[in-house]
Amino acid sequence: MSDSNINPESNPLPFGGRSLQFRDKKHLWHPLTQHKIAPEALPIIKAKNCILTSEDKKEYIDGIASWYTAMYGHCNEFIIAKVTEQMQNLDQVVFSGFTHEPAVKLSEELIKILPKGQQKLFFNDNGSTATEIGIKMALQYHHNQGNNRNVMLAFEEGFHGDTFGAMSVSGLSVYNGAFEEHFIEVLRLPVPNGKNNTEVLEKLKSLIAENNIAGFIYEPLVQGAAGMKMHDPEGLNEILKICKENEIICVADEVMTGFGKTGRYFASDYVVTKPDVVCLSKALTAGLLPMGLTTCSQKVYDAFYSEDISKGLFHGHTYSANPLACAAALAGIELLVSDEIQQKIEEVQQWHREFDKKIKNHPKVTNQRQLGVIYAFDLNVEMERYGNLRNELFKHFMDSGIFLRPLGSTIYILAPFTISQEEMNHIYESIEVALEKF
Amino acid sequence: MSDSNINPESNPLPFGGRSLQFRDKKHLWHPLTQHKIAPEALPIIKAKNCILTSEDKKEYIDGIASWYTAMYGHCNEFIIAKVTEQMQNLDQVVFSGFTHEPAVKLSEELIKILPKGQQKLFFNDNGSTATEIGIKMALQYHHNQGNNRNVMLAFEEGFHGDTFGAMSVSGLSVYNGAFEEHFIEVLRLPVPNGKNNTEVLEKLKSLIAENNIAGFIYEPLVQGAAGMKMHDPEGLNEILKICKENEIICVADEVMTGFGKTGRYFASDYVVTKPDVVCLSKALTAGLLPMGLTTCSQKVYDAFYSEDISKGLFHGHTYSANPLACAAALAGIELLVSDEIQQKIEEVQQWHREFDKKIKNHPKVTNQRQLGVIYAFDLNVEMERYGNLRNELFKHFMDSGIFLRPLGSTIYILAPFTISQEEMNHIYESIEVALEKF
Repeated sequence: MSDSNINPESNPLPFGGRSLQFRDKKHLWHPLTQHKIAPEALPIIKAKNCILTSEDKKEYIDGIASWYTAMYGHCNEFIIAKVTEQMQNLDQVVFSGFTHEPAVKLSEELIKILPKGQQKLFFNDNGSTATEIGIKMALQYHHNQGNNRNVMLAFEEGFHGDTFGAMSVSGLSVYNGAFEEHFIEVLRLPVPNGKNNTEVLEKLKSLIAENNIAGFIYEPLVQGAAGMKMHDPEGLNEILKICKENEIICVADEVMTGFGKTGRYFASDYVVTKPDVVCLSKALTAGLLPMGLTTCSQKVYDAFYSEDISKGLFHGHTYSANPLACAAALAGIELLVSDEIQQKIEEVQQWHREFDKKIKNHPKVTNQRQLGVIYAFDLNVEMERYGNLRNELFKHFMDSGIFLRPLGSTIYILAPFTISQEEMNHIYESIEVALEKF
Repeated sequence: MSDSNINPESNPLPFGGRSLQFRDKKHLWHPLTQHKIAPEALPIIKAKNCILTSEDKKEYIDGIASWYTAMYGHCNEFIIAKVTEQMQNLDQVVFSGFTHEPAVKLSEELIKILPKGQQKLFFNDNGSTATEIGIKMALQYHHNQGNNRNVMLAFEEGFHGDTFGAMSVSGLSVYNGAFEEHFIEVLRLPVPNGKNNTEVLEKLKSLIAENNIAGFIYEPLVQGAAGMKMHDPEGLNEILKICKENEIICVADEVMTGFGKTGRYFASDYVVTKPDVVCLSKALTAGLLPMGLTTCSQKVYDAFYSEDISKGLFHGHTYSANPLACAAALAGIELLVSDEIQQKIEEVQQWHREFDKKIKNHPKVTNQRQLGVIYAFDLNVEMERYGNLRNELFKHFMDSGIFLRPLGSTIYILAPFTISQEEMNHIYESIEVALEKF
């Protein structure tokens, strides 16, 4: 598009005369995007509760809470007020050798709601770094005790992030061809679906017998990037039991599942056997700011606690425990545990159940699944993950004023807890139209 | 320390009766810290411009700008106002398929000051992810063209972060024993010091001849974590020229050196041959919020731009291009290029030069070095990086109301640009006392 194609009359341009879309293309390289074939980026100028407003003043319901982060709605006034207040007093300080109230308070509030047995918090900046530290905790736990354990175990189709360590354990290798030779050694286990549990456990036992497995990293119950695929809590529990019997550190990646989305605070709450390590990010900071956390049990921490300095975890990011991000996280937890949000979580679950009843016999609907406010099904139509038909489906929703992001043929909803019934109904109706159109 | 040891009379406790230090120890695992032998974390309750205030109301001059981030001073009102305004309108939106004014504007403002040839920006969350993406750009640049290049080149004692990819290229392996077997293959080059340039270039040529080198990652002119070690711009220029002749992607890690600290906007501005890729973080967001950026030339971008989706860079962090972090970065750049800050940078450099004259003949002072507002020297005393004597030195400064963080026997100053002459003089005086004491 050349400059002269832009007509300021037909398209109001609040930012200096040129559209954001035009300016965006000059210098920006977007994540997970092949720019030569991807549609142009849609400029967003405002976000309030569940509504994103584009530069051309169209409104979109944020049906995936901006990648499962803005669970209490965008620009939530309670959260903004807390962060604004924090910004007046303490913006940032080195977290090696120093501490501060927002981090300490966050540790106290989080421990109250984390799965039983979690005792220590290690701060970082995003989901990838949270899992990298989880992997390091598992490997070094054994290294510090002189155990020869250097292999990680992970689920097929798991996704744990995009840095090299995180990529290594991700089984969902979409386009990692350039990097695979540089990965940590990882063994794969199929997810237990209730029918294959016996075989999965047999495979686990033989992998353990034949390898030096240090840790097992898993998305508990819901594999997000794989397409909101859900698995059997009983099967997962059996896997964790066997891992624990064999001193394999169990690392729950709750980056996507954490903070109420599954109907409980954490997906691990549905599973009797608790993880040794938990990875957190996304909704941790209520959709405002980047932050990651890796938490662990006393047992894991104790394996690093020594007179020997080299047994410490020598990992650190500059903005670790950023006070503003901690303030956002504290505000988010206060909302999460409130009666109001807990009631909304119940309500949304009920809406999903009713919608599921309505569409479950449609011939294009298959593999419906729900956990908490996460609802997903597969469209009975062949689609590539980033193929044209999938892009048409995305466009269908956007044209209806809805931001959903189908993963191949999987349509899923993971809206903010604060969504209104009217907004959710609009999403449901648009899905019903899609069922007829595709 | 048991609960009863805390005396609320002697130590005012603003947060619910128990000291932060006491509460901190219950659930927090600090970065780069062996808790069994480390001193307890010092609680900070306020930061304003160059002063950190502790829970017991002591004041400390932030002599390293909280790890080289808060270059315009803490809780800078201009920056806070910009972030507060942004928070009212747009907190966060997915950056795949969407865009927004703060990211676009930041790309425009950054390109104006980045080393010549930088054309595209890829957002991420911290210095480690910035270098991971730099490594990926180098490896996949060749992979996409069918070149068999899978080895990285890096300086001895370089430091590029703590995730697995970033750890791999870091030559400064302090305590990475548990992870080294999982690293990417990396070749090492000594830094050019002006005397060894010929040998370094010979070694470089033979490494290139014998290996399939994809990229060279380097901290230009100053190796921060190694102890503010400085090297020869001419030597670096020759290295970069040879790399470019051999189609090796040059990745400048300007995470520490960026944004005016060296006296120019970027350390690469001192070197004739420009990098293909630049990694940014730390002062990028003016000390307020975490964010990383990996920028690149059109040539690098073009190698990923294709009808073939698998040639894209399939990397993405959820909070990529977070609008609040972009707003902080924009405010920071506005300050950086202002006459006021540019003048302060000049002034601080002049103060350092005068101080250097004063101490340079002291028998305990060796290897003095200065670039821009970075001033460093080695204390002519044997010290381990995290040893007791180094900890005594740290304590000496803290007792004088100064936060400096010696790296082994290296004492360095990297204070906010906004530091007053009186504050800087206090730092200098405390260093002079240390010269007599240690």
